[in-house]
Amino acid sequence: MNEKKLKFVKRVRNEETPEKMIEGVLNKDRAVLAKVITLIESSAIRHQEQAQIILQKLLPHTGNTIRIGVTGVPGAGKSTFIETFGYLLCEQGYRVAVLAVDPSSTINGGSILGDKTRMEKLSTHPNAFIRPSPSGGVLGGVHLKTRESILACEAAGFNVIIVETVGVGQSESIVRSMVDFYLMLVLTGAGDELQGMKKGILELVDLIVVNKADGENVNNAKKTTREYNQILHFIQPSTAGWETKATMCSSLTGEGIDEIWKRIQEFFQVIQSSTVFKDRRQSQVKEWLFSLIKERLETNFFSNKNVRKLLPEIEDQIINDQATVSEAVDALFREYKKKDS
Amino acid sequence: MNEKKLKFVKRVRNEETPEKMIEGVLNKDRAVLAKVITLIESSAIRHQEQAQIILQKLLPHTGNTIRIGVTGVPGAGKSTFIETFGYLLCEQGYRVAVLAVDPSSTINGGSILGDKTRMEKLSTHPNAFIRPSPSGGVLGGVHLKTRESILACEAAGFNVIIVETVGVGQSESIVRSMVDFYLMLVLTGAGDELQGMKKGILELVDLIVVNKADGENVNNAKKTTREYNQILHFIQPSTAGWETKATMCSSLTGEGIDEIWKRIQEFFQVIQSSTVFKDRRQSQVKEWLFSLIKERLETNFFSNKNVRKLLPEIEDQIINDQATVSEAVDALFREYKKKDS
Repeated sequence: MNEKKLKFVKRVRNEETPEKMIEGVLNKDRAVLAKVITLIESSAIRHQEQAQIILQKLLPHTGNTIRIGVTGVPGAGKSTFIETFGYLLCEQGYRVAVLAVDPSSTINGGSILGDKTRMEKLSTHPNAFIRPSPSGGVLGGVHLKTRESILACEAAGFNVIIVETVGVGQSESIVRSMVDFYLMLVLTGAGDELQGMKKGILELVDLIVVNKADGENVNNAKKTTREYNQILHFIQPSTAGWETKATMCSSLTGEGIDEIWKRIQEFFQVIQSSTVFKDRRQSQVKEWLFSLIKERLETNFFSNKNVRKLLPEIEDQIINDQATVSEAVDALFREYKKKDS
Repeated sequence: MNEKKLKFVKRVRNEETPEKMIEGVLNKDRAVLAKVITLIESSAIRHQEQAQIILQKLLPHTGNTIRIGVTGVPGAGKSTFIETFGYLLCEQGYRVAVLAVDPSSTINGGSILGDKTRMEKLSTHPNAFIRPSPSGGVLGGVHLKTRESILACEAAGFNVIIVETVGVGQSESIVRSMVDFYLMLVLTGAGDELQGMKKGILELVDLIVVNKADGENVNNAKKTTREYNQILHFIQPSTAGWETKATMCSSLTGEGIDEIWKRIQEFFQVIQSSTVFKDRRQSQVKEWLFSLIKERLETNFFSNKNVRKLLPEIEDQIINDQATVSEAVDALFREYKKKDS
């Protein structure tokens, strides 16, 4: 047996069995949880299969939790906010898991610093679990994996899951479809910021938090909060029965953080008293199913060798009015079918 | 030969050949244009094939036109506006075609009245062509067909195409993807109306027109226009290099209509002086291609007998945490492949 093969066998032998991992997660062993999330995030078929076996057994232990999304432009202070906010919850006895959906993490370097540096205080709290951002990869994958990581954390007894995202591509609306409560951190100067803000983002969130409301910035923050509240008056709230409002806080001094947690609790009281909570969770699972189906259909189609070969030519033809779009679609599907038969 | 078959042959014989139809459209024969659009809208395979042959030959004669979308809630006065606006253009020598994307037309009865009644004055103008709304049907189909009807109208020498839509389903964003300039008609009372307005619609349009600014309503209209302009300040414009603003008009008295046309001309000067116009048209064609591909992929998948049989059961399982979503997708694709093999 050559060395390479031996190494492989060793690695396999060293791996814990799915049964051991399931047991570990349910026993709140965070080292095992970390391993399970690594399996979930792995693109190796064998790992994916193991992850599915594990998740299947963890499923009955998931769901009875609070899922909070936190978004905001780079520089809005998401890490500091989550550190202060998460610490408050941990101190109150909640078990808090922080996951990141950040397709740009390899680019902006946000996660290269590592989460020990980013959330130093929170990461050492016995009630906290912080999972570094997935490094790059297609968003669809991140999306799939973050949802499954949420389930793994819940099975490990974490009852508040915080999903952090930066507004890149479709990540903001994808995160909306996996959390119950969605919070957006903004900086002072609403007008300027809104100009560059992604379309439709205000309609996705349940609370806008003007961050860095400290020192000389307090008056600005108050003004900005008022401005956001004026705008929100014209915008359809994200959650039926809940009015999206703006408030302010300082992640530095902790001022306003407690108030935010109270609002979130109030939100859960409201939506759990009707069918809104249950309906949203159910429709999120269905949405997830349909988005994965669509993703796979498109991946199959656009990765097809024949389709890939013909597509640039076809695009040229339709742009230059040499073919109708219907003809183009027919031609592409004929090529696609060829491989199937 | 039995009577039924004879009738069929007669019908086929009575139909004009594609060559005749192409000639007719290019000769600006509006009766032939109407027939071609009927072919385009037909769901019969034979008609679709004919339509494709015809469109293929018409393509080189399309594109050098102004495509305007008009949207607004029912009651905003779209028909009256288009009548007054279209008449003004026709009088100036433009050739104006009006098409409707209205998936609800069979429900709200808007088109049952017929366009002779809806736009009586415009419909009799020698420079105008009005196509009644498609009666119902899935929106995807309407979308496909409206795009192709635009091309047919352009080949027939119409140089201003007005696409009318009511805000149902996805129709508003679909129309955005087929026009150059998008205009939204609103009524007075911005605040109230915005509450019920579809999410993200303000970010789709290039001009908001407060309609019915006449009589006692003028002051209200002025106030509403101001309110919309304030809100628009916070919203990302739909077209790069163009600031979306609100203005007002009366379709009844014609006041403000001329000003709207001036703004649209200014818009085209701005976007044609850069690559914005060309880029948008090109990306619209590509978007169209990709949306048709996705539509067909999904239709093939979800109309598959095995998939349809398994889906309700699978949905139940994932909602009740009996299966992971990845497992569910795998199972559905296994069923889907079965038929293929």
